[in-house]
Amino acid sequence: MKPLYEGKAKQLFATDDPQLLRVQYKDSATAFNGEKKATLSGKGELNNRITSLFFEYLREHGVENHFVKRLSATEQLVKRVEIIPLEVVVRNWAAGSLANRLGLTEGTPFSQPIVEFYYKDDELGDPLVTEDHIQLLDIATPEQLIEMRQISLRVNQLLIQWMDERGITLVDFKLEFGIDADQKLLLADEISPDTCRFWDKASGEKMDKDRFRRDLGRVIEAYEEILTRLGGRADV
Amino acid sequence: MKPLYEGKAKQLFATDDPQLLRVQYKDSATAFNGEKKATLSGKGELNNRITSLFFEYLREHGVENHFVKRLSATEQLVKRVEIIPLEVVVRNWAAGSLANRLGLTEGTPFSQPIVEFYYKDDELGDPLVTEDHIQLLDIATPEQLIEMRQISLRVNQLLIQWMDERGITLVDFKLEFGIDADQKLLLADEISPDTCRFWDKASGEKMDKDRFRRDLGRVIEAYEEILTRLGGRADV
Repeated sequence: MKPLYEGKAKQLFATDDPQLLRVQYKDSATAFNGEKKATLSGKGELNNRITSLFFEYLREHGVENHFVKRLSATEQLVKRVEIIPLEVVVRNWAAGSLANRLGLTEGTPFSQPIVEFYYKDDELGDPLVTEDHIQLLDIATPEQLIEMRQISLRVNQLLIQWMDERGITLVDFKLEFGIDADQKLLLADEISPDTCRFWDKASGEKMDKDRFRRDLGRVIEAYEEILTRLGGRADV
Repeated sequence: MKPLYEGKAKQLFATDDPQLLRVQYKDSATAFNGEKKATLSGKGELNNRITSLFFEYLREHGVENHFVKRLSATEQLVKRVEIIPLEVVVRNWAAGSLANRLGLTEGTPFSQPIVEFYYKDDELGDPLVTEDHIQLLDIATPEQLIEMRQISLRVNQLLIQWMDERGITLVDFKLEFGIDADQKLLLADEISPDTCRFWDKASGEKMDKDRFRRDLGRVIEAYEEILTRLGGRADV
């Protein structure tokens, strides 16, 4: 069966219900706009389980999203949405591209979370865009931008607290949104160590994709530790 | 006499009045964050005369600014302000870094002008910044940002019309603002072919610093033509 869509880390398949899709999480890891690639055995299962736990937790706390249920170790069922081609990034601490852009020292805490929008376009290297750019490209309405920002900040509050109780600092994360058949804006995509920066509160150690990006080793072990602290368990 | 400040294209000198500065326009041309450099004889005079005409025109049309008067071929007297380290860019047509960032064809007109803020920092390469970044860096207040945007859009309206009557398309331009001794926000810096993109309406020919950036030749001749169409005349 051919996927409807194949991304760097996931495949999307049709189901018998036109409003539902099956997501298959892959073991492939990529960074730097696909320039660095590897297969990390078990990553697909870990991100599927972690994302499922995050989306269930968010739904229980009033943040509607595309997640329906986990189907297997590496698969989940989600509502079909048309993805808005924006990455919404929320940052609580200076790290990664923002630290480079503004000349900040990684690990500097912010007094207020920063929300950024990046245009999802591999050829352009997913550039930072402003609200004026988004209007120009006709990617989202001003009302949708306000709603995406509000939901993202609510997700930030919820995840900061949940992770803090588990000894983890939520440094930053990326969300994606889609429009469902009823024209409703829904949180979608995934929330995992591929899309978040998690630092161990006690040691400061990185527990996310930066271990892969920066060749720090023990990538899968860090993802497993995140799943364990969330109360989950992998079959592998 | 040592300048208070020396930039790529201008020097600032103290005067007997602590609230006034003397600006000396230089003949040096730079591009790509200083990587490309040249001396273009006569550029200092042309930009001094063109900027003086623009600032006088804007003041006559209700846009207050730092310009006091032209002192000589290459000098002008301005109010002393503390420059806000932001470049405010207004764009009416796709060109330059925005065309590259968003994958747009140069010369595509916009239905609405785009306003962008860039952080003036040579080491960081003057990065694009969002309002969240500006708050984080504590560069300007939200009220100042709104005011800078409003003034910039008003300048755009005024300059589009003035240039259009002279057969010139205003593609985009960069403004800088400062805070004066009374804490008032004032338009400052310069407005010239170094800081604007001007295209001849009839031929589409570039009449600005892109002639230098892109090695198109006849740089000074283009600047002279801008001055002539504005009704000015250079001594050289």
